[in-house]
Parts: sequence; structure tokens; C-alpha cells
Amino acid sequence: MSIYLRDIPLFEARAIFRQALTEAGLWKVLAEEEISIDENALGRVLSSPAWAKISSPYYHASAMDGFAIRAEEISEAMPTQPVDLTIGSNVQYVDTGDPLPEWANAVVPIENVESLDRSRQPVEDIRHPEIIRLRAALPPWSHVRPMGEDIVATQLVLPSGQVLRPFDLGALAASGHSTVRVSRLPRVAIIPTGSELIPVGQNIQRGDIIEYNSIVLAAQVKNWGGLATRYPITPDDYNLIRQCVQKAADENDLILLNAGSSAGSEDFSARIVSELGDLLVHGIAVRPGHPVILGMIRRTSGGKVPIIGVPGYPVSAALTGEIFVEPLLALWRGCPAAVPVEIDAKLARKVTSPAGDDDYLRVVVGKVGDHLLAAPLARGAGVITSLVRADGITILPRGVQGLEAGETIKVRLYRSSDELDRTIFAIGSHDMTLDLLAQYLSGRDRRLVSSNVGSLGGLVAIRREEAHLAGSHLLDPQSGEYNVSYIRQYLPGIPVRLITWVGREQGLLLPKGNPKRIKNLEDLSRKDVSFINRQRGAGTRVLLDYHLQQLGIPVTEIRGYDQEEYTHLAVAAAVSSGRADCGLGVAAAARALDLDFICLFQERYDLVIPCRYLEGDLLKPLFEVMNDASFRKAIAEQPGYDVTKMGEVILDC
Amino acid sequence: MSIYLRDIPLFEARAIFRQALTEAGLWKVLAEEEISIDENALGRVLSSPAWAKISSPYYHASAMDGFAIRAEEISEAMPTQPVDLTIGSNVQYVDTGDPLPEWANAVVPIENVESLDRSRQPVEDIRHPEIIRLRAALPPWSHVRPMGEDIVATQLVLPSGQVLRPFDLGALAASGHSTVRVSRLPRVAIIPTGSELIPVGQNIQRGDIIEYNSIVLAAQVKNWGGLATRYPITPDDYNLIRQCVQKAADENDLILLNAGSSAGSEDFSARIVSELGDLLVHGIAVRPGHPVILGMIRRTSGGKVPIIGVPGYPVSAALTGEIFVEPLLALWRGCPAAVPVEIDAKLARKVTSPAGDDDYLRVVVGKVGDHLLAAPLARGAGVITSLVRADGITILPRGVQGLEAGETIKVRLYRSSDELDRTIFAIGSHDMTLDLLAQYLSGRDRRLVSSNVGSLGGLVAIRREEAHLAGSHLLDPQSGEYNVSYIRQYLPGIPVRLITWVGREQGLLLPKGNPKRIKNLEDLSRKDVSFINRQRGAGTRVLLDYHLQQLGIPVTEIRGYDQEEYTHLAVAAAVSSGRADCGLGVAAAARALDLDFICLFQERYDLVIPCRYLEGDLLKPLFEVMNDASFRKAIAEQPGYDVTKMGEVILDC
Repeated sequence: MSIYLRDIPLFEARAIFRQALTEAGLWKVLAEEEISIDENALGRVLSSPAWAKISSPYYHASAMDGFAIRAEEISEAMPTQPVDLTIGSNVQYVDTGDPLPEWANAVVPIENVESLDRSRQPVEDIRHPEIIRLRAALPPWSHVRPMGEDIVATQLVLPSGQVLRPFDLGALAASGHSTVRVSRLPRVAIIPTGSELIPVGQNIQRGDIIEYNSIVLAAQVKNWGGLATRYPITPDDYNLIRQCVQKAADENDLILLNAGSSAGSEDFSARIVSELGDLLVHGIAVRPGHPVILGMIRRTSGGKVPIIGVPGYPVSAALTGEIFVEPLLALWRGCPAAVPVEIDAKLARKVTSPAGDDDYLRVVVGKVGDHLLAAPLARGAGVITSLVRADGITILPRGVQGLEAGETIKVRLYRSSDELDRTIFAIGSHDMTLDLLAQYLSGRDRRLVSSNVGSLGGLVAIRREEAHLAGSHLLDPQSGEYNVSYIRQYLPGIPVRLITWVGREQGLLLPKGNPKRIKNLEDLSRKDVSFINRQRGAGTRVLLDYHLQQLGIPVTEIRGYDQEEYTHLAVAAAVSSGRADCGLGVAAAARALDLDFICLFQERYDLVIPCRYLEGDLLKPLFEVMNDASFRKAIAEQPGYDVTKMGEVILDC
Repeated sequence: MSIYLRDIPLFEARAIFRQALTEAGLWKVLAEEEISIDENALGRVLSSPAWAKISSPYYHASAMDGFAIRAEEISEAMPTQPVDLTIGSNVQYVDTGDPLPEWANAVVPIENVESLDRSRQPVEDIRHPEIIRLRAALPPWSHVRPMGEDIVATQLVLPSGQVLRPFDLGALAASGHSTVRVSRLPRVAIIPTGSELIPVGQNIQRGDIIEYNSIVLAAQVKNWGGLATRYPITPDDYNLIRQCVQKAADENDLILLNAGSSAGSEDFSARIVSELGDLLVHGIAVRPGHPVILGMIRRTSGGKVPIIGVPGYPVSAALTGEIFVEPLLALWRGCPAAVPVEIDAKLARKVTSPAGDDDYLRVVVGKVGDHLLAAPLARGAGVITSLVRADGITILPRGVQGLEAGETIKVRLYRSSDELDRTIFAIGSHDMTLDLLAQYLSGRDRRLVSSNVGSLGGLVAIRREEAHLAGSHLLDPQSGEYNVSYIRQYLPGIPVRLITWVGREQGLLLPKGNPKRIKNLEDLSRKDVSFINRQRGAGTRVLLDYHLQQLGIPVTEIRGYDQEEYTHLAVAAAVSSGRADCGLGVAAAARALDLDFICLFQERYDLVIPCRYLEGDLLKPLFEVMNDASFRKAIAEQPGYDVTKMGEVILDC
């Protein structure tokens, strides 16, 4: 058995799959079925064109409440020379929609009529007079909806391939249809496999993995117009998986076999596909997600069913859905696959990419000033939050080894471009209160997207006009003041407002009970102590370096100084999990993961906002939130936070 | 009882409704409920923020298939100086996702290892060696996904108001949630009323109206995230309707009472709303749709339920849904209402508008050359096909009395802008084969939008760069040739290709059996014969006028010469329904509505295509279709059509 998969290019994999589906007679609309026209037909796809069976209106109908007449009889009517008509065989009251009497050829709206009795006196019930008086002529066919005004029998109402919308249903009904021929819903089996998997809702233990790929895949299938069936988790047992795949093939149009598609010790998928049908592709040069399997399984009753071996990492799984499942379902339903809106954006950071792969890069997108910016998100195939946070995806095709910051890229948007207009793009230092801010802003029709690159990175982003605001807590060793000297140095000539966000406590994050009895920064140089650091450019690292220098402790003496994390919570997680004995961070991070905390410093965390964004509507909700008592209270309740100076302007435009 | 509704402006109606809902405690998210995390949660709206309960990964996990080791033990390894490690307490095989053993701090991928037995010979099963040989050092934590890499316990996973997407469900599950708090689905009652209504599927008689508004409204409600219940049709019986409204109020969050909201003779809605609660608004200055009712109904069990009296005309009904129901459902669900994509487009035709109304104008949109064009569709409130055909809507606000052709308008798109790029915009003469062409093009990823303005109108559109092609059949009386002289006159200096589309028969459309024994054009001047004409600029009208002139028949002698229709089918419908005794049109229109036909002329119908569009991808499928034998055959089977010269170039660039 080969360990190394031969990754083939995506275009080649697609061609092989298409060929196999064509040979199996499956490269076409699945089948037609006839369904009733009601709200359940919404979103179904017409498999035949719909031609009108009857005209609509079905007869000449009154377009107003009024009186049906013959236009000739009032041709002489004038304001000063009214014509009186007697209700009877040639004059009759009609409601809107009523059929025009055979003898009539026009309707006078009731508001243009004087309703009189036989003695020419106004009547109370103006709809039931004995005589009507008219003071103007009317052309024939006035206020009449002629038969076929909307739809003429035999005309095309909707072409095949139409995805039915609410008013399409109305038009079909109006043209005499009570049923409609649509493509059958594709049935998709989703089979999660793995002995380490536990279902959602079960208590997790070390070594367990919560099985949620099947939910994500089922929801994708539902979104794309298929009928998903989630099969129960099958443990890593060759025979059980094989049985389940065969059963799924007999009951469905497509099988998604989750995990077991790489070449790990318990990965049976490829073997099972080979044995139950044809293994077409094993390994595709896409990133993330390369250990994809494509194959065909023989049905017990004859014919073949395609199977896709979906990789186990959640990002790979979701992207495999987008790349292979969505277009196949569209083909089977008979409608074009939804084409995502594609925009041009400026890449905010340099990225590298393996030259041999089509590389799907998740990005957040924000409109800052006049240009759209795309900031790459975490690349890991295991990081599902990178999909949650993603505003779109960009594909670095095979042959491209990377892109420089500032290059223009095409981004396929997951969001409407309208949402981008309501997005506040924050780049800079991480603080946990930004989560709370995001929550409050979402109630005020704003989306806060923050990219954590450290305080210095935030100032650089402001200089490049790549952020609406930056969080910063850079201590100036000379003055003991925060941020001001850095702004002078990094943002010369760029008018910004510097506003205090919070005061906060920085200190040592330690395992509960502080087993190694670490007390202060001096203890970091102890041989038995390992440290977890923040990345270069982070304010917390500037703070650490400043104090280590003051204390004369060389960084080379600190074990783990090179181990970097990007957020306070990530540092806390490293300590909590035993990866390190100690880290430097804010009190709230210690509290979140139930760690011990020794406060070392009190510091100020500010927001830097370019003056050009102060006036527009975009940031208004931010200033409202700052003055919202419930928001300040919520922050003050977090450990180590001080909101008494929130909103104080340190530097102004 | 007042006949005339007092129409109030839309903004005022909205404010009154909002006030009443606020007083009833209904201007907020309806209520929370807890649901399981599975694919059925798709599209639901978070009513509380979701914070991570656990970290993900839940433990330090191997990121690769390989061997868990302590990085220190191979710090000296080099290609020329390998380090051998014995499988045992400090070296252990791990699959991707397996927990990292407590003692380990790195994973060596299996492909970077030599798997040996005790005598230093390679083993077959490389996952179960006795000794592994390594030729490179590794930093600690290599190929390990540290606990919390994706999500750290306590962090914000999703804010409230999030509409759940597939990967959101994954992130919630990964962060330890098995249920989620979402807003309750709003329940919406839809009550169709009217004695003239028949349900879809029942045989229609003169005077019947097929009831489909409730289907359109229910489908809209479903699209907007509500739970619609369609009540049976209630006839125009005051007590029955009143009972039904009270029942609906007791069972739902919102009532849509369809029709009965104007002031016709059987319109009880306003009275019933007054009696069962508060009538807030009766008549709103929007077009189409002004007889809207807004009110509140008292629940038997206490509290109030909003009711919307929806006008009976289908376009008014659908727009009332968009204007009032969609935002209310969004409010109740706790998510922002979908903001439609808005584009700027050039108005293709002059429009007028009542100054007092907010006027919702349906338009088709096409991208012709560099600019987006919007052509207004039929204005009638009864024309549901105008919604089916609409690519978007533009609002002419109160105070605007009309717009000139060429003015820039804002269009809210019903389609993705991508679809507009695949749209072929045809303006000009109507021919019934265009329906068939639309059907064939839709199978080739093109949408044909045609605006029927007659042959001359088509040439004008080409001159204004407002169409990709125009159908034309303009006879030059001097030469007897079609189109060429008109192109020279109307399109001087504009390079176009003139291509023959079809030959077709024009003649008299007559009721079955030809009761009035009409034989030729001379008979049109008979006193007992009424005629239905085509509009000015139509090729068929040019043809008629030319021959009338030849015959010396003044148009004033033809009864009905002023009655105009825009298509052959509409002329046929007028004859079929008895509105006229006779019309001039193509044989296929006669066949469609089972009319008699007397062929008078053989004519050529051509396509005029500006040379600039000949090369691009857009029109390629059109030329493919022209050469498609099955398409030609389908046309040739229509009566009176000749396809032998289809595709012949008459004039070239």
C-alpha cells in the first residue's frame, strides 16, 4: 500500500470525474417529477419549459369598480351636457375583476358617475342607483383588462432551468397550471467514519473529536438544493464502513464519505471504493484538502453512484463541498451553479503558496477609504473559525508561489458587498474587549472585523490606509507615556485621533495553584521554567522586552522566548494546556481559562483612528457604544479592566 | 361608508404601524427558543451571542500521521548524523488528530522517518517499526495543533443576529455547543377571500379568478424566514371572514388578509379590522398597491396581532409583501433585512408617474456595451408576468412626475449582477420564435430579454447603443426589399450585420369559421367589421399602411384602427375574445389561439446586430442555436415559418 498520494491537478480530477459520470449516464439532469404548485415548489428547478395553458385574464374583466357600458352611448357626454343611462340591459354595476358583460365595451369608474334615482335625486347606496349620469366620453375598452392582457395562452411562461421564485408560482397558476415538472431532488448520503468521533452533545474526553463535518456538509447540501441524509458515525472498522457505503449507494445519488481519505493507519476509504466500484482519483493538488477521493460505487440493483472521499479537516471538508458537490448538484438539478460575486481587492499581507497546488485562501474583506482590502486568515485546514470569519475566498492557482502585499487579487465573496460597506476594519493589537465590542456593534448594524497583528502592525496598517482603526498599547520607555511617540514616529503627517479605550492589568498567566512558584519576571530565566511569548510588534512583547532590559535579563536565558502566539487567549491556552509554565498577558485571559494571575503592570490601551473616518456614518455606532453605560459596565465587570477614561481624547486632529 | 380612500404617504404609514407595534410590545425579536445544532438550524438567527464552552482542539493533537517525540532528543540530528530512537515510552506512532502523549512536544511526519527493525533493516509496515531514524532536528511543537488553536474556551464564536450558515454550525459544535438559542419562527396567516376565487387545479369558468396570491405570499414568507399557513378561500361573507380573522389572530403572529382591502361592494376588511381591533391605515400612496390596510387585531387570550390588508392585484400583493412583511419578519427574527444590490442604470424609455405616490416600477436590465440599461415593464397591477420578467425595481418617489429616457436611475436588482452579464438584450419587433429562442438560449447559459417596441423602435435602440440586437421586418415600398433602406436611414455610420432570421406569413387573423366572411384588406372598411391594430412603428403596421395606401383605403374608414396592441399574440387574443373581428398578424399566432388565418403576404424577418457584439462571447450561443438542426426544425414546425435562409447575411460590417 502506498503511503504517498499522487496529487493530480484539480482540472484533471474534474475531467476524470466528469468522464466517469458521463459513462454512467449521470452527467445530466437526474430525472423529472411532477409536483403541485404551492409554496413547497419554491426553489425547485423547471425541467421542461412552461407554456401557458390558458390566458390571463381568462376573460375581459373590469379593471375598476364601476359601471359596464357601451362606449358609443356616451360619446356625446360633456361636463355641460351630461348623458343619463338607465341601469338595465346595457348598463350594469361591476366590481373590479368581474367579467365584462358580453354587450359592454367599457367601464366607467364609480367615482366618475353621479348615482341617481328615477327622479334624478342622488341615492345613498351609490352602487345601486336607477340612473347614472356621465359628464365625459370614454374610448372603447377603457378600464377593461382585456383577456390575455397578462398572459396569452400558448406563450412561454418560464423556460426550463428556471429556479422557481414566489411570483413564478403565481404566473404558473395564472396560466392554468396546477402542477409543474421539475428535476428530482438529488439524495446525498453523508457517512462520518472514525473511532475517535463522538456525536454533538456527548461529553468530550481527551482523544475524542466532536463529529460536526456531517452537519456542515448536510447544511451545504440543503443550501444547494439536495436532500441530505446523515448516517450514524461508523467506527474505523473495515467491514462496517464497507457495508454502510454499499447501503448508501443503494439509497442515494451521491455519497460523501467523511475522513478516512488520507493514508493514515485506519484509512480504509480508498480500499473500499476500489472494491465496491472504481477508485478514480486519490489525492488532488488543492490546498487545503488534497487527500480527496473520487470514485464510483456499483449499486446492488445495477448502475453506479459517485462517491467523494471528503478529508477530515473541517476546512478541507467544507471546501471539498464547494469544489465538487455544489456544481454536481446544480448539474443534476438543471440550473446553473450560483456564481459568487467576485471583486478585486488589495492583498493586505504577503502570502506564500505551494507552487503545485490550487490554493484556496480565506480572507476578510473591508472597504477602507476608496479601496477594498483583503487580509488573509489562518491557513490551517483545522481552523473552522477561518471559514466563519471569512468574507470570501481567493484562489492562488497552480504555479503561483505567493503574492506580495498590495497586489490586486480576485475575491469570491461569501457576503453581499453591502455588508462590506457596514464593516469596520480594525487591524492592530488584540484585546479581549474587542469581542464584546463586536457583539454590541452587530446590534447597531455594523460588523467589526479585527486582524490581530500587534500594536506596531496596526500603526503600519493605518499608515498604509488599510484600517479604520487600530488598537495600540505601546509604552515609550523614555517618557513612560503610551502610543504618542510611536504615532509621531510611524504616522508622520497623518492626522489621527488617539482615544483611550481601557486601562488594563498586564501580568503573569500561571497554571492554577502556581506549582512552580513563579513570582516575577526574574523567574522567567529559571532553568525549570518555560515561557510562551507574544509575536514581534505586539505591545505586550514591547512591554516585556522593556522590563527585561531594565532588569538586565538577556532574552536568550528565557526558555520558550521564541514560541510566539498572536493573542492573549492563545497565550492563556498554552499555559492552561501545559505547553508552557508561564506567559505575559491580561487578567481577563487568565480568568477566562481559570488560571492564576500575578499583576505586574497597569497599562493604557488606546484606539488610533484616522481623522478622515471620524465624520462618516461608519464609525458613529462605535462612538455610541463607547458612551453606552451598559457596555462600559459589561467591560468593567471583566477582571482587570478600567473604563473610567474610556473615550478621553489624547491626541486630536 | 366612504368610497374614496385617503391615501397617506408610505413613510407615514410605516411610522403609524411601528408605533402600534411598539405599543403592543411587538417591535422587537419575537421570542427565543433553544434548538439542536444540526442542518435544520440552517438559516435560523442567533438570539444570544455564542461564547465557546470548550477549546478546539480540546487537547494538543497531532497534525500529521507520524511519531510523537520529544524535540530535545533529536536536536543534534543531521543528514549525515542521524539519530535513532526506539519506539517505547518516549516515542510513539500517532495518527492525525490523535492526542499528543503527555511527555511529547513534537510530531515527526511519517514521510520524514526511516522505519527500521531492531537490526536496523527497513520494515514493511512503516507505522510499526521498532526503531525510527531521523536526519533532521525539529523545533518543539512542530506538527502539533495546540489546544485552542482554532477556538479558545470563552471566546466569542458568533454574535447574536447571526444568520446560521453551514460552517457556523460546525464552529458552534466545535466550541462545545449542542443546542443554540435562536429567535422563534414568526407564524404568518394568509387568508384569501373572495367569492370569485377558485383554488389552483379547479376548472376555470368565465367570472372565476384562480387564487394564487396566497401561494405567492406564502412563498415570500418562507423565503423571508417565516412559517406561513394558508387558510382556505373564504367567500365574501362578512361573518365567515370575521371568524377566520379572529381564529388566525389567535394562532399567528401576523395576518395577511388578501383582497377585500379596496372599497368595492364586497369589501369587508376595513370594517372587520375596526371591529376586531384597530384600523390604523386604509390606503397608502404607493403604486401599485395603494388600497393597503394596516391594523391590529385583539387576541382572544389578550395581546394584539398585526394585520395587513393586502390588495388583490397580484403585483400589488407581492409588493405589499416586500414593503411591509419582509422588514417585519427580519425585525422579529433579529437579523437585518436583506439589502438588495442596487445599481445605477440608464432608463431606456420615458416614464410618467403620479406625483403623489411612491411608484414602484419594474424594469428589465441589460448590460449593453459599457452601460447598464433599464427598460420599464408593463405597469398594470394585474400583470404578474411583469414581476416574473423583472430584473429589478426602481422607485420613483413622491414628488417625481416622471423621468426622461437616458436619465440615470437606481435599480434594486432581483438577479445577481452576474446574470446581467449573461443577458442578451433584444429590443425591436416581436416574433413568436423569440420565445423558442429564449428557451434554447437558457440551455446555453444565456438569458434573452426582449422588449417589444416594433421594428423602428428596435433600430432606434440600436442607434442609441441600447440593444445587442433588434428584430426587424420593415418593407421598403420603393424597392420591395426588407430593412436595408431603413438601416441606411436610421443607422448611418453604425456598422451592423443584417442576418435573415425567418421567412413568415402575414395575414388576417379571424374568428374560427370566419362568421363575417372577411377575405382581404378591402373588407376592413366594411361598417360591420371592427379591427385591432398594432402599435405605431411596428413592421406589421408599416405593412398594413403600405397596402392600404396602395388600395386607396383611408385609415379613418377602418373601425378600431386606433386600438393598438404590442404583439401578434395580443392581436390574436383580441380577435379570439371577440374584442375585434379581425387583425393582421403571423400564422403562428392564429394557430396558437385556434383562429382562422388568410395568408396575404410573405415577408422576411431579420436580426440587426451591431458589429461590435459579433466577436464577444455573449452572442456566440445565439449563432450556435441558429445552426442547431433541432432548433430550425422546431421553428419550421410552427405554421407559416420558413427557415431555409436562416443565418444568411444580407448586410455585413
